[in-house]
Amino acid sequence: MDHIVLTGDRPTGPLHLGHYFGSLANRVALQHAHPMYVLVADYQVITDRDLPGAIQANITGLLLDYLAVGLDPAKVTIFQHSAVPELNQLLLPFLSLVSVAELRRNPTVKDEIAHSSQRAVSGLMFTYPVHQAADVLFCKGTLVPVGKDQLPHLEVTRMVARRFNERYGPVFPLPEAMLGDSPLLRGLDGGKMSKSRGNAISLSATEDETAALIRKARTDSDRLITFDEAARPEVATLLTLAGLCLGRTPQDVAAEIGDGGAVTLKKVVTEAVNEFLRPIRARRAELTEADVRAVLRAGNERARERAVVTLEEVRDAMGF
Amino acid sequence: MDHIVLTGDRPTGPLHLGHYFGSLANRVALQHAHPMYVLVADYQVITDRDLPGAIQANITGLLLDYLAVGLDPAKVTIFQHSAVPELNQLLLPFLSLVSVAELRRNPTVKDEIAHSSQRAVSGLMFTYPVHQAADVLFCKGTLVPVGKDQLPHLEVTRMVARRFNERYGPVFPLPEAMLGDSPLLRGLDGGKMSKSRGNAISLSATEDETAALIRKARTDSDRLITFDEAARPEVATLLTLAGLCLGRTPQDVAAEIGDGGAVTLKKVVTEAVNEFLRPIRARRAELTEADVRAVLRAGNERARERAVVTLEEVRDAMGF
Repeated sequence: MDHIVLTGDRPTGPLHLGHYFGSLANRVALQHAHPMYVLVADYQVITDRDLPGAIQANITGLLLDYLAVGLDPAKVTIFQHSAVPELNQLLLPFLSLVSVAELRRNPTVKDEIAHSSQRAVSGLMFTYPVHQAADVLFCKGTLVPVGKDQLPHLEVTRMVARRFNERYGPVFPLPEAMLGDSPLLRGLDGGKMSKSRGNAISLSATEDETAALIRKARTDSDRLITFDEAARPEVATLLTLAGLCLGRTPQDVAAEIGDGGAVTLKKVVTEAVNEFLRPIRARRAELTEADVRAVLRAGNERARERAVVTLEEVRDAMGF
Repeated sequence: MDHIVLTGDRPTGPLHLGHYFGSLANRVALQHAHPMYVLVADYQVITDRDLPGAIQANITGLLLDYLAVGLDPAKVTIFQHSAVPELNQLLLPFLSLVSVAELRRNPTVKDEIAHSSQRAVSGLMFTYPVHQAADVLFCKGTLVPVGKDQLPHLEVTRMVARRFNERYGPVFPLPEAMLGDSPLLRGLDGGKMSKSRGNAISLSATEDETAALIRKARTDSDRLITFDEAARPEVATLLTLAGLCLGRTPQDVAAEIGDGGAVTLKKVVTEAVNEFLRPIRARRAELTEADVRAVLRAGNERARERAVVTLEEVRDAMGF
């Protein structure tokens, strides 16, 4: 089957190496195999917070990250939620296909609500799995790279597609999840990698910033470096990071360091990360804001052309 | 203040005299005083039922009703929900301004849920007051003719406008309700006038259909016709109907009939209604389906131009 891939990010801040190994690398590979839509989910920024923040700067940064890691705008359509009204309109017929009880049961929404910074659950948060269905189905996406926590959302998308087809005739494919197999990359403090925890190396970090972050990373006092995730999680995190950047196993990296201790470990990791980021930084340095704007404008236009066609099919099927 | 009026109907079937005296007459008068948008709320048809039914025929019929009663497409913008994606997109930022708890408390939604033909409450039903906010605010409507039961919806619209302005800067006016003062027109069986009860005279009914409906109306055996809503509700309904059509009070009509009994009463009512509907029928007979399509196409375009401008202001205010 010839797949159409839909993926994307909320523009809430710089992407980091966790994003790269968790999803961006996969996208860069997939873009050669399938048509792909990459969504800058600007409306989703306000699902769990009141204000969108420095959204314009975040969108520009996200586009720079995408282009720097090698997403090719000639192959992928990078577009912005709020620039495609015909996609957003799909929310209306789709909302008629899902019950309030089903929305309430969605475990990811429950979890997001638990972590929300808002005092009350907004209507946008409550309905966002249905909006995600519009994201996937507007381009008739068939393959959606997701983390495990996103699987319930994809189930909503499949349910919406199935019910629409049953009620109005066959318009939508039932998209499949593509679960990543990359190892979990923890933050430099051993916790979940996250910009807000200050434990993540951004794709836009300089060599010095990268070195400083790794210098601050926790390790232990055992000079013999071994890969033992249970007993030595901080050391294992650094070895995993170096391994991913070098394309080697963390055990292999550990064996090479031997009894060099934390100092050698950090030196190896710093060099591996900076070497890995060198071509990404070089591509970023060549890009201007005008480039980014042009890529987004072209992507928005292409996404819109696609959405207009799908919305027309939907209106026809519904007899409007 | 120079008002902008927003009003409309769900295209679920022919409009009847209850609609005329309850709202259409008011619109025909208002169109000379203010710019007016008249919404054919096609998406709302699926809020409380699974399938939209013969929606295309219903939309054509609704347009014929509008034009027949004298709405002037040179003065009012008649448009279709599903044809204005930029209006529908407003649902997304607006949903972020309203909490799930607030949606659940809406009394009209509670009531609609109680009368719904659906087994489960759909997401579209649950969020439709927010969608109505988009209907009113896309054109910066300031005056909304509503029935009392719609007042809670308008409160949601005002809340959305107020919160948007507070959060992002002044974009929207706070629209006001315009409560009608026409007497309640009951159905010919004394119950609520409704197409589905078969007790309503459609604006598109022929003279013979009208006469037949009135012939079947309940009355009583007292030959002296008097206007007494509590003691003689069926007779009062017929007198009210005749009075509205003749531009006279029901008491006045009763006095004229005197002791003519039910037969005279029904004759007077039939003549009054048919006389009243004569110019409306004449205008309808002159209209073709092509006229209707042209009016809707032009209205959709005008509404869309308005929505594009408002959506751009919204995106700017939000920093998108």
